[in-house]
Amino acid sequence: MAQEKIDFTSLETPCLLLDTARLEANVARLRARAKALGVQLRPHLKTGKSVDVARLVLDRGTGPATVSTLSEAELFAKAGVRDILYAVGIAPQKLNRVLAIRESGCDLSILLDSVGQADAVATKCTETGQEIPVLIEIDSDGHRGGVSPQDPATLLQIAEILERGGAELRGVLTHAGESYGVVGREAHAEFAELERLATTTAAATLRRAGFACPVVSVGSTPTAHGAQNLDGVTELRAGVYTFFDLVMAGIGVCSVEDIALSVLTTVIGHQKEKGWILVDAGWMALSRDRGTASQAVDQGYGLVCDVDGRVIPELILGAANQEHGTISVRVGSDAQLPDLPVGAQLRILPNHACATAAQHKGYHIVSSDSATNGAYWPRISGW
Amino acid sequence: MAQEKIDFTSLETPCLLLDTARLEANVARLRARAKALGVQLRPHLKTGKSVDVARLVLDRGTGPATVSTLSEAELFAKAGVRDILYAVGIAPQKLNRVLAIRESGCDLSILLDSVGQADAVATKCTETGQEIPVLIEIDSDGHRGGVSPQDPATLLQIAEILERGGAELRGVLTHAGESYGVVGREAHAEFAELERLATTTAAATLRRAGFACPVVSVGSTPTAHGAQNLDGVTELRAGVYTFFDLVMAGIGVCSVEDIALSVLTTVIGHQKEKGWILVDAGWMALSRDRGTASQAVDQGYGLVCDVDGRVIPELILGAANQEHGTISVRVGSDAQLPDLPVGAQLRILPNHACATAAQHKGYHIVSSDSATNGAYWPRISGW
Repeated sequence: MAQEKIDFTSLETPCLLLDTARLEANVARLRARAKALGVQLRPHLKTGKSVDVARLVLDRGTGPATVSTLSEAELFAKAGVRDILYAVGIAPQKLNRVLAIRESGCDLSILLDSVGQADAVATKCTETGQEIPVLIEIDSDGHRGGVSPQDPATLLQIAEILERGGAELRGVLTHAGESYGVVGREAHAEFAELERLATTTAAATLRRAGFACPVVSVGSTPTAHGAQNLDGVTELRAGVYTFFDLVMAGIGVCSVEDIALSVLTTVIGHQKEKGWILVDAGWMALSRDRGTASQAVDQGYGLVCDVDGRVIPELILGAANQEHGTISVRVGSDAQLPDLPVGAQLRILPNHACATAAQHKGYHIVSSDSATNGAYWPRISGW
Repeated sequence: MAQEKIDFTSLETPCLLLDTARLEANVARLRARAKALGVQLRPHLKTGKSVDVARLVLDRGTGPATVSTLSEAELFAKAGVRDILYAVGIAPQKLNRVLAIRESGCDLSILLDSVGQADAVATKCTETGQEIPVLIEIDSDGHRGGVSPQDPATLLQIAEILERGGAELRGVLTHAGESYGVVGREAHAEFAELERLATTTAAATLRRAGFACPVVSVGSTPTAHGAQNLDGVTELRAGVYTFFDLVMAGIGVCSVEDIALSVLTTVIGHQKEKGWILVDAGWMALSRDRGTASQAVDQGYGLVCDVDGRVIPELILGAANQEHGTISVRVGSDAQLPDLPVGAQLRILPNHACATAAQHKGYHIVSSDSATNGAYWPRISGW
């Protein structure tokens, strides 16, 4: 990549580096897919948790967007995003914050999958006279929550409660989280088809009973990139496609060279007879995520690159304590441990970008655009 | 426990709860042990990362203390702690920050285990005329870094470089991190003895060559609680003994009832036919730490308690996504899943207190002292 270098030596390690050329290419790739599939893209902003990242991901637009916490919704609403879906099942205690965000001028919608939640939302709408937009979560793959599409009684009961209470039943939604566990586009396409079938079946049930159900929302990064046919679907959600990571590379959704996020670290010691290089990136900087442990190639706590981002073959961060990472050659490889003195800098590609990014307060930007190169983009955390 | 209740329903979940009665009992327990063993306690503040927690842990004193990042050192120095050890091998790039903290009036000491680091420190001391205090890390159990106590040549070479450069060789230090992997006081006592032997051997080598080596520092929570004899040792370090967690309970260092830290969470859904209760504490709130996975009893992502902190038998948070936790009865148990409506609150005891606490910005305090009960104690993060 033709990239100006930022002065890495001035950075306190460990810290996050974000390569905007890779980020922009990843964003463009899914944007083109959504266009070709004829659906609207609703990017999940939980990976970046940054207004600056959101500007790139949303093409400087005002949405639609997806979030995983009300803190994210508050941040992005304040930054001008006008259409946000909070895609975690609603707790009744959170409805006042939802209303406050809506009153600030953002069309925030919520998710639920039970009669109990529908009752709470209906009561709140009746009490306040506010029409909260709701998506009903549908279970497409047994991964987590959601009403079964084969349970029309519950689906219709929820819809009726919402309507009676004055809420807006905006549509149905699913997320095939099990797609993370299978490898290759064909397997991901099968989960994408499960998402499509589950949501369009549920939407048909609702429409037959007279509910408009305008939104049919599906997605995950693997299914978004695997989907072949989204007939009947109106929007596609995905999050980690922006940064990508080793888990996504391990299931064939991206290549290692697409990963936009890395952790800059400094060598702080050696145990040469054991084949160890110690660095100042432990699990506090990388997270405890070991998502590649169950994949064909276990990447430990991350794949080691030189300071310019080139993968050093067979070198992984194999063990992590709070502030120590232990780099070693992959078990079974006869590669040589490189000779890196104390003070040398390296980059680590993460297993799971959402988890690794969450350990940091912001991104140091690596960009070919001299106006952006070296910038610091803050992240938010908390709920 | 005779405890006033705080109004948990007013808290945004997920959030951290810290029970100060348990914290104070844990602190008193190790303080009494150190006194009985005749050594000074140097608490590790990396678990709490909070000035308020540090006040309790340090008995409102000014140290000694241990930290894992220079950000912690800066925070605690500013709060009046006057004797701090930064217990991660020093990177040469960090020496200017070390000097700035020392110039603020805090006696900050550093750790190293190589000739390369000693050269960098000596050069910095010579250049600046500042006498940086240094401990040499000793490898007692093959866990991570450290000079072997059987390698007097390296040990003496480091000491000579430091002395020539005008640094202060303050002593030797070890941490038997492998003690986390063994169960019971006898096994922990064996690692404590490894720590003692390694450091006193190294100290003797240095003293025979004319280096004073006043400090002989050992410790980890298991070895601190297991040690039977610390002859020749001057100080004991430990961190997670303050909060404790399921990993420590699993190796017999504490009971589950000693765990001072929990995550307050709210029920957001059910999949009754699967035996699942969904809550709003996922790995973002609990961390990805699965430290009990390799123990006799795998606690998943945490043990479930009612809102008052009483363990609900056989109930664990078995699976976690970013903002979703899936609670289920432990595999093999015939316990019933409790009937908990959407909106009900629970507490989750963490696998690893350091990792779980790091996912949050502060602690909501549960205390029998009405002046403290309900208080919010901020934490720091970053490097």
